[in-house]
Amino acid sequence: MFDFTGTYTDQYQLTMGQVYFLKGHTHHTATFDYFFRKLPFNGGYAIFAGLEDLLEILRDLRFDDKDLEFLKKLGLDSGYIDYLKEFRFTGKVYSFREGDVVFPGEPVVRIEANIIEAQIIETLLLNILNFQTLIATKASRMRLQAKGRTLIDFGLRRAQGTGGYHASRAAIIGGFQATSNTRAGRDYGITVSGTMAHSYIQSYDDELTAFRDFAEAHPKNTVLLVDTYDTLRSGVPNAIKVGLEMEKRGHKLQGIRLDSGDLAYLARKSREMLDRAGLDYVKIAASNQLDEHLIRSLLDQEAPIDIFGVGTSLVTGHPDAALDGVYKLSFFGGKPRIKLSETISKVTLPHKKQVYRMLDIHGNFIGGDVVSLEEEENPEMMFHPFDPLKFQSIAQHDKEPLLQLVMDKGKILKKPYSLEEIAAFSEERLEKLPREYKRFFNPHIYKIGISKRLKKERDQLIEEHKMK
Amino acid sequence: MFDFTGTYTDQYQLTMGQVYFLKGHTHHTATFDYFFRKLPFNGGYAIFAGLEDLLEILRDLRFDDKDLEFLKKLGLDSGYIDYLKEFRFTGKVYSFREGDVVFPGEPVVRIEANIIEAQIIETLLLNILNFQTLIATKASRMRLQAKGRTLIDFGLRRAQGTGGYHASRAAIIGGFQATSNTRAGRDYGITVSGTMAHSYIQSYDDELTAFRDFAEAHPKNTVLLVDTYDTLRSGVPNAIKVGLEMEKRGHKLQGIRLDSGDLAYLARKSREMLDRAGLDYVKIAASNQLDEHLIRSLLDQEAPIDIFGVGTSLVTGHPDAALDGVYKLSFFGGKPRIKLSETISKVTLPHKKQVYRMLDIHGNFIGGDVVSLEEEENPEMMFHPFDPLKFQSIAQHDKEPLLQLVMDKGKILKKPYSLEEIAAFSEERLEKLPREYKRFFNPHIYKIGISKRLKKERDQLIEEHKMK
Repeated sequence: MFDFTGTYTDQYQLTMGQVYFLKGHTHHTATFDYFFRKLPFNGGYAIFAGLEDLLEILRDLRFDDKDLEFLKKLGLDSGYIDYLKEFRFTGKVYSFREGDVVFPGEPVVRIEANIIEAQIIETLLLNILNFQTLIATKASRMRLQAKGRTLIDFGLRRAQGTGGYHASRAAIIGGFQATSNTRAGRDYGITVSGTMAHSYIQSYDDELTAFRDFAEAHPKNTVLLVDTYDTLRSGVPNAIKVGLEMEKRGHKLQGIRLDSGDLAYLARKSREMLDRAGLDYVKIAASNQLDEHLIRSLLDQEAPIDIFGVGTSLVTGHPDAALDGVYKLSFFGGKPRIKLSETISKVTLPHKKQVYRMLDIHGNFIGGDVVSLEEEENPEMMFHPFDPLKFQSIAQHDKEPLLQLVMDKGKILKKPYSLEEIAAFSEERLEKLPREYKRFFNPHIYKIGISKRLKKERDQLIEEHKMK
Repeated sequence: MFDFTGTYTDQYQLTMGQVYFLKGHTHHTATFDYFFRKLPFNGGYAIFAGLEDLLEILRDLRFDDKDLEFLKKLGLDSGYIDYLKEFRFTGKVYSFREGDVVFPGEPVVRIEANIIEAQIIETLLLNILNFQTLIATKASRMRLQAKGRTLIDFGLRRAQGTGGYHASRAAIIGGFQATSNTRAGRDYGITVSGTMAHSYIQSYDDELTAFRDFAEAHPKNTVLLVDTYDTLRSGVPNAIKVGLEMEKRGHKLQGIRLDSGDLAYLARKSREMLDRAGLDYVKIAASNQLDEHLIRSLLDQEAPIDIFGVGTSLVTGHPDAALDGVYKLSFFGGKPRIKLSETISKVTLPHKKQVYRMLDIHGNFIGGDVVSLEEEENPEMMFHPFDPLKFQSIAQHDKEPLLQLVMDKGKILKKPYSLEEIAAFSEERLEKLPREYKRFFNPHIYKIGISKRLKKERDQLIEEHKMK
């Protein structure tokens, strides 16, 4: 993967760091919250992803010689550069569990570290978590529409450069089953998948020989691409010939793939032709600019497609392309901190905080998380963050604390979850979310409220700043 | 950067490779074309970027031990794995010069290599070129709208993971002047820029002290962020105080930065306040979800903004998020190759090809490139690729061949251009493009035609396939 070093950050983190260093703030602990403001894709939830990667990168983060040399060239203070030479992330990370369903406005990760460390890692943290959460969410949307069909990530070629590496990981968390990205398969233990491209068939003088050679070289894993010349008049008939030949040798053709034309029509016709030839076990895979809308539409039409290969829209999170996650100071120097804004919804929540999810008697989610002060154990009231007329008693509900300490003194506290475990956890959590929040269009809005004490503290801080 | 290895590819490249290997096609040379089909952002041109990175990656590409072990685990043929152990890219690369303006349908890069090598590098090539070309094009659009103002890339935190690294490079090719991305600055020699975030100011009990400490620590490079509490009542007045104090010490405040609110209004008011205080040299920087449309709108309103910081929309190429570049076989085993399609515009161009750009007597671009057979030296007629009624004589025009051999036997043939040189070349080429093609809305369509001989060869091949 990428060799993350200390300079994988925004320059202002380093210039601010120099001020903290020169002013002797080196050992003042700061608390920052990671949260996002808007759900991507007009959806009703997001899937939190990227945590395990982030923790490993934080654990190993150093300024290497090239970094230090470059910072020297930029004219940074030499005492500060010496400090950065010894830089380690030695702070604490509190986090939601990776794979959980998350919502706008709640702190999903909380960092407590000396202020220089906490600033330097900001860019890295946002870069990793924003992107993987975006992609896991996109994948999850596709999964809900695919209704149990197999989903394979085909995106690397259209991914945003090496971003494709983490995208393939995040896709699995969101519910994909496999990837074409061999390197991601290698490093993350993802099932890899892929058989042939048009170029392979074009390299032969005829399609049938191309199919035969492939079936011979890969008897257990042959999916024939049938649209190079003419799907129904050449591709599928040739695939059927080869499928029947494979049967005679005791093998089975796994599938055919459609990659152009009217996928619903071609899938239906191909299915009929395959079935008539006795090849009812041969699966139909479809690809070509798919997204959750097209998958939904194809299945609405009862297109007999078993496997969807999804590329660009998955790995780039099109059309949103980014999650708007931010990282805001909430406590420093023994005091709560706030950022005001012309826009009320952009005023930040001060203090070290915890988030509680409300559960019904079956352990399912009721549809609300409450953000409280860290030390509150069972907040009894939940307030709308900005609308003073909206509040409710929540004393009667079971509550689950969501922020857990996962890194302390720069050390990861537990064995990392495997990607499989994270994906399974994500599936389990999504199960607990009532269906209205998973609706494809106009989902119900999951409530994120604040506790009475947090509200009081915040309002007081706003007043103090306004009176200055 | 990322440690690219042989498995940075789609699995099907490797499964097809096994067929080629087992069938003894190992030394058959294949020719592939890289081209895209649609201009991003409804624009009139694209800026080709990523080539130097690609060539270095190709030169160094190997299957490492982890790769080979993984492929073994996947059950690939052991003779084939031994072959991959010795894998080097030993082919030829013909390419447009990086930074040139490019158009849909013309082969921008041509690869000639043994077919296994040519297939394995496909994903990598597309991954690098599609993304950097997308971002350089986006940057160029912003540059045209910014009318000489300074543009700084702030995108790393919202970039698609490590894709942000190459995005910062591509932004420079498209005409940005600096980046906040320190690591990209280090590796590519880009000017880095960045001063302070809201958190820095929040970490102080008052804004004025935060500003003073910063000005003291960075006397030559202070840009004060003025919107943490109240831009016009707190931020700008405090910045003016500090600016005047800096003057007394013989220093100069470089700028202020606006990051929220109505940027046009706040810039105008801030400019007035700064000028009244005698700080007319202090620059105004603006950021906050900018893109080419907002930059255009701000300057239409004559907002006195000197510097634009652009993040998400730049580095993710929002709203397009991907360039649809493809890589198609055009020659193999001594024969031209074609891919047919239900959609006529997706039929590929066979043969080894050259591209000529037509020039007027001043060396400016006339508005058309013609794709010819490689050996044609001065194509005299240009045909619309699909409309038989559209053709014209081009004998009278000067023509510039655009595909040049840049790599041979896997070796880079010339000293790489610096990023500065590539950006300067891009600017020069864009100058030569008539303004109608650079129009913001509904730009004129640059013509990509094919030569008479190429048309004849293609039409013949279509007929042959249809007759089968």
